[in-house]
Amino acid sequence: MAVYTEVSDEALAAFLDGYALGRLVAFRGIAEGVENSNYALKTEAGDFILTLYEKRVDPRDLPWFLGLMRHLAARGIRCPEPVPGKDGEALRELAGRPAAICTFLPGVWPRRVRVEHCAPLGAALAALHLAGRDYDGVRPNALGPSGWPPLLEGSRASGDSVQPGLIAELDARLAEVLADWPHTLPRGQIHADLFPDNVFFLPGPEGRPEVSGLIDFYFACTDFLAYDLAVCLNAWCFEPDGAFNVTKARALLGTYDAARPLEPAERAALPVLCRGAALRFLLTRLYDWTHTPDGALVTRKDPLEYLRKLRFFAGAASLSSLGL
Amino acid sequence: MAVYTEVSDEALAAFLDGYALGRLVAFRGIAEGVENSNYALKTEAGDFILTLYEKRVDPRDLPWFLGLMRHLAARGIRCPEPVPGKDGEALRELAGRPAAICTFLPGVWPRRVRVEHCAPLGAALAALHLAGRDYDGVRPNALGPSGWPPLLEGSRASGDSVQPGLIAELDARLAEVLADWPHTLPRGQIHADLFPDNVFFLPGPEGRPEVSGLIDFYFACTDFLAYDLAVCLNAWCFEPDGAFNVTKARALLGTYDAARPLEPAERAALPVLCRGAALRFLLTRLYDWTHTPDGALVTRKDPLEYLRKLRFFAGAASLSSLGL
Repeated sequence: MAVYTEVSDEALAAFLDGYALGRLVAFRGIAEGVENSNYALKTEAGDFILTLYEKRVDPRDLPWFLGLMRHLAARGIRCPEPVPGKDGEALRELAGRPAAICTFLPGVWPRRVRVEHCAPLGAALAALHLAGRDYDGVRPNALGPSGWPPLLEGSRASGDSVQPGLIAELDARLAEVLADWPHTLPRGQIHADLFPDNVFFLPGPEGRPEVSGLIDFYFACTDFLAYDLAVCLNAWCFEPDGAFNVTKARALLGTYDAARPLEPAERAALPVLCRGAALRFLLTRLYDWTHTPDGALVTRKDPLEYLRKLRFFAGAASLSSLGL
Repeated sequence: MAVYTEVSDEALAAFLDGYALGRLVAFRGIAEGVENSNYALKTEAGDFILTLYEKRVDPRDLPWFLGLMRHLAARGIRCPEPVPGKDGEALRELAGRPAAICTFLPGVWPRRVRVEHCAPLGAALAALHLAGRDYDGVRPNALGPSGWPPLLEGSRASGDSVQPGLIAELDARLAEVLADWPHTLPRGQIHADLFPDNVFFLPGPEGRPEVSGLIDFYFACTDFLAYDLAVCLNAWCFEPDGAFNVTKARALLGTYDAARPLEPAERAALPVLCRGAALRFLLTRLYDWTHTPDGALVTRKDPLEYLRKLRFFAGAASLSSLGL
């Protein structure tokens, strides 16, 4: 469910008057995405996505996000491109919310990840990192290491109701990850949330999936580039039964490395970055799990999926012990 | 939230192989609708809606529904038209569910109903009834009078938790409505669920809203034609504060009557039909309210909204006492 804010026809009509997109043809809520309200918008000018930014997005970050998407799109990355209004401004207001119209991207996100998705994913991620190099401005990663202790505090009172002993284990693992966290790796603009539902694919000429779009840049930030790889290793390379799929991980790393060769320090740091990424999703899911009221219209994602991944990566001292 | 069944890329590709719609361009879940899973599907041939029929729809009814839409579309009604596969069959299977692709309709459903929506609505409803006259086959209204007592029984144990005394009041009102229910009014194929989110509008040449599409025929059935008007009077003609808007009701009835003149018996029966329609939505909402588990991904609609409407119509002996 991703329509939190309803838009009246009058408000929509007035909003579209600010754009040179022709007349409205259709307007439908999109089921996907959890942070913002998304609508499929069709006008005489074509297909677009209208996003209303909900309260979990800090409005002060929006110019940075939209600027990044514009910057990346101008460098050939297939990502949503903010559409400016007649006055040149892309960030506007609708139904009392910050709002923007972005270009529509073709493609389908993979409901079941196959090895054939992972190679194009790695190449697309490297291209994203390279294209972001000259994007000015720094957005700290609010969900990076400094954000984890407060998240854990927020779940301390009720976390053990999810699994007995969970909080004690997380205290220990968080301390280990923070102690091992690297300080000096190549930094840049990262996506930070590149899960399968944020990557669209279409079959290429030979039928193999090709990346047709990367979406949802609202966790993007300035951090270690290799951390994005760690997020993808978590999100793309485990099977539903919890097994780590080395073949997928090799495909992902291989094409990434071919486009942006990993430094030895990045390779050495990847296992702890993977632990950190697992912890980040574990902590936000745990927080949501323990703070979402019963009956809320949000899918609560299982935090324990990421406890299993965290434990898995905690057993790996190096990439080679992961089979990589 | 209206994506209950996820579709893997492989299953979707195999499904689309059964159609002559060209290659897949995009596939996104739609937030709207509550009974089935709906996807916006874009192929080289254009925009479509892919529906997976979930468990509240009886698969045996699907040929009747799809046949009705095909029949209506062929007579100029702007409704989704089932798209046949290469083998001529529109009703197929996907992800273990019955599934169909229908044409995409332009337009936007009104988040806030204005008087200007009600006149075109009445004309569209009359056109629907006239176009359905020669559609063969009868589908009884499972949510008509004979369906109300079992629905009330299903909520008896917990209904008073919604409002003390509710069940006793509903027992009395149901008995009154059943006693007053007419037996001989013009019958035909009715939509039976023509709420604002099932009617799309676009501005006409003079800027006034015109109906561009009627959707969601999965409650359609064979019943009194005037019962559809009673549903619309309930769903379109009350203000958010609970006040009945006579101007909207007059606009709705006026254009309907101009296209299909109401018989005196239908006019006389409209107040009890309105009580019945209020009761129908009250009872299904109450049932859902008392049977939806906490945390389920469904918006529970307030049953008491329809208790207020039921009480309002119970105070009206005739159309003229409603100001109509």
